[in-house]
Parts: sequence; C-alpha cells; structure tokens
Amino acid sequence: MAVEYDGTAFVGFQFQPGLRSVQGVLETALSRIFEEPVKVTAAGRTDTGVHASGQVVSFTTARSSFPFDRLPIALNSALPNDVTVRDAAVVDPSFSARFSADERSYVYAIFNRREPSALSATSAYHVYAALDLDAFGDAAAHLIGKHDFRSFCGTPPDNGNTVRTVKTLTVRRRGTLIRVAISADGFVHRMVRTIVGTLIECAAGRRDPATIPAMLDARARSAAGLTAPAHGLYLAGVRYRDGYDSFAEPPVTSATDNS
Amino acid sequence: MAVEYDGTAFVGFQFQPGLRSVQGVLETALSRIFEEPVKVTAAGRTDTGVHASGQVVSFTTARSSFPFDRLPIALNSALPNDVTVRDAAVVDPSFSARFSADERSYVYAIFNRREPSALSATSAYHVYAALDLDAFGDAAAHLIGKHDFRSFCGTPPDNGNTVRTVKTLTVRRRGTLIRVAISADGFVHRMVRTIVGTLIECAAGRRDPATIPAMLDARARSAAGLTAPAHGLYLAGVRYRDGYDSFAEPPVTSATDNS
Repeated sequence: MAVEYDGTAFVGFQFQPGLRSVQGVLETALSRIFEEPVKVTAAGRTDTGVHASGQVVSFTTARSSFPFDRLPIALNSALPNDVTVRDAAVVDPSFSARFSADERSYVYAIFNRREPSALSATSAYHVYAALDLDAFGDAAAHLIGKHDFRSFCGTPPDNGNTVRTVKTLTVRRRGTLIRVAISADGFVHRMVRTIVGTLIECAAGRRDPATIPAMLDARARSAAGLTAPAHGLYLAGVRYRDGYDSFAEPPVTSATDNS
Repeated sequence: MAVEYDGTAFVGFQFQPGLRSVQGVLETALSRIFEEPVKVTAAGRTDTGVHASGQVVSFTTARSSFPFDRLPIALNSALPNDVTVRDAAVVDPSFSARFSADERSYVYAIFNRREPSALSATSAYHVYAALDLDAFGDAAAHLIGKHDFRSFCGTPPDNGNTVRTVKTLTVRRRGTLIRVAISADGFVHRMVRTIVGTLIECAAGRRDPATIPAMLDARARSAAGLTAPAHGLYLAGVRYRDGYDSFAEPPVTSATDNS
C-alpha cells in the first residue's frame, strides 16, 4: 500500500505501547477489516513528526478472498484524517516493503522568510536567515555518490555499516519555499535531517561548502552541522526492483515542480 | 497588520469568551506588548475553521513611541504557531481594516481524487466525485457582476442588503488540486462557501449551470446548493482605497500560479 500521513500528531511510524504511532493506527484499522491480527512492515520507519507522501507498507493476511481493489476505500473510512491509503495491490508473498526496496526518496521543505508562516508551521521548517542557494548547491554536490555517512548519522545501525550511495540531491527555490530532494539506496538514522541542517549552515554563510569532504572523512557526528527539525521532512517515495515507485510530491512543495 | 492563520484550532476570528479565537489570541499578545488593553478590528470576521493568508487587522495604541518596524518580530514570538504577522505599518487614525476596504479576495482549495489526502486534510476540501471544470466555469460565469446574493447567504446582514458585486471568479486545476478564486466589493455570510458548494454540484453533474440565474432570482437560501466546508477556505487578500493589497496565495494552492 502507498500511504500518506501528516506526522504532526504521531510519535513516528514505529509501534510504541500506549502512544499514537502510524503503525499502531494502521494495524488497528487493518485488524478490524480483516478480523484477524495484522502486522505491517514499512519501507522507512520515520521518526516522530516526520511526514510521508509516499510511504510503502506491506502485510500478510489469510483472507485471500477479500476484494483488495476496495481496500483503500474500506481502510480510509476506518483511518483517522491524518493517515490515508492512496493505493493497494496484491503482491508476491516474497515482497517486503522494507527489504525489496531499491531506492528511497525524501523531500525537505524550508520556509525562508524573516516572518514565520502560520499556514506552513507544521509542514515546512522556518529559516529566517538569508540563504545563498549557490552555496547550498556547492555543499550538496560533495555528498552525491558513495560515502561513509557516519558523520551524518544519529544512532548507527546494528551492523555498523554507514556507507550509502546518494543518487540525487537537488535544491530549488520558489518564492519563500526551498525544496531539497534526496534519493539514495538507503539512509542511516537522521541522515536527511543532518544533511539538510549542515547545508543550511553552508547556505547561511556559517560553514564553508568546501569543508564537506573533511566532515565526511571525520566519521564523527560532531563534525557535521545541526539536525534540521522533523516537521520539514517527507518520505516522498520508494522504488522497488520490479519498477514500482510510490513517489508523490508533498503538497507544500508541489509548486516547485513547475519552476 | 497583514495576518496569516491556520483556522483549524480556532472558533473563528471573532472573540468568544472562554473559547480560542484569532481575535482573542491577537489581543492577548498585543495587550502584553503594549502594556495596555488593545482591541483589534479585522477586514473579515472569518467563521470557525476558515484560514487566512492575507487577513488585515488594525488597532489603536497610545504607545506612539513603540518601534513599529519591530512589531512583527515581537508579536510573532508572543503568538502561537498558528497565527503569524507578516507585515505591520503605522496608518492614518481614520483607517479601519474593515471599513476602509475596497475589495476582498478569497481562495477555496478542493482536493479532487477518489482517495483523501492526509497531508491536505485540514487545508483543502476532499471531493471524490469527478468534476467537469468546463461546467464549473460555465456556472461561475453567471455569478460575476452585481447580483442580489440572498440565495447564497447564510445569516443576512442587519441592514438586509445582500447585493454585492463579484469582480473575478476563476477556477483552475493542477493535478489533484482545484483552486477557486473570488474577489468582490464585499461578501455576505457564507457567500464563498455557498457559491463553491453550488459550483461543485454543477461540476459533478448534479445541477445544470444554466439554472444559476434562476437561483439568484429566487432570493432564498434553499434555491442554491450545499455550503462547502470551512477548511478549504482562505481569506487571501484585502485591497484598500490607498492601493495597499494584502493578497498572499495560500501555500496549498500556490502551485496553480504557474499553470
């Protein structure tokens, strides 16, 4: 299923007892519809406050006679307003939303004006400092390709592997809105937010874009910049081996498609 | 002051004792900053749940030595996240945000896809039916100009005058988003929402656009269509005699500017 959610009122994707998680809300609705306990697997376990326009979630059910073409309608009427299912399909039992994914894409929205914006307060990060988009792009260019992202990683993964390949990293401005888009074969914990926080420092003139390679080499979180807040971040799409891509532009940044 | 707010968590603009109103929140912040009771006047008293990207608010203060160029910064740090001040200026004492206004503009956002959108749940009205934009435009054309809008009025004004002049009424689609923009010398209660609700019925094939003139002639609320919900509506701008215009495109619909 391709799933959209507003992360504002969730503790994140992952189930936490007694707290409101996207996983919990989805599993409650699915278990009611299928009249059996349903557990879901997500392509990306987004942190507290992070949004998704193209999350992918898979699950297994014994109710094979269910009319799956009507699952989005049934599920959307059972779900709260801040989680919606855009699309659903029956897939091979070997499919995993998480492990079959080839590439993930995130979009980060920055609202860049001296005054904050009430209508973007939960959908974009307000940066009041003037940002130099050339410096932003120069710094970003150093991060494209295969690197050890240890310096841009919150909690390292259990296997200790922090090498990832960033395929695209673009930045565009339209009016007061700056859209950062990044795709990679995978992401370490808080990688997008740490990259965006560091690029903002470069664009604000507080760091030199030429220092990015040294940050990567340092392999220490303290070498990179601040972690940008969760509410500007969107899991925008996941691409699979079979070619399926769940990408959907978040509404707040869709304007930049035309620029 | 040009003011932006997300109407979701407000009972509307107008002060109501014990309830969270935009006026109440603004007056509390202003009274604290000016250390005297401050009362505000708004260009439009928006209903419960209605948003604003270009509301205009005026007030009088005895603290004439206040550094007014710094008022937005001072006020934004005192205000909650869902109300922000974009701009402020000292004006002639005869100015009234309400009575000096020449023209008001509203934008209405419709999210038109079978599945709802979690990320637009509080910023656009979800219409699942297919909408014919030609029929929408044909119906809209009948409303442009000077008419008695009694049939499109919730609670009539005290003076009973429901004649208004609609200057522009446009509809555009970009992807799943339909943007309706309407400007007039003034609006009667719920006029935009009743117009939008009626135009949606025409676009969905449930009413004939050619019946709009008869609806106007009927001068009865029952002759027109449903009232579209508050959360798709934005008070987008107010134009004054001196030429000042507070218009700002709501973030959710800014994409359509390019189409």
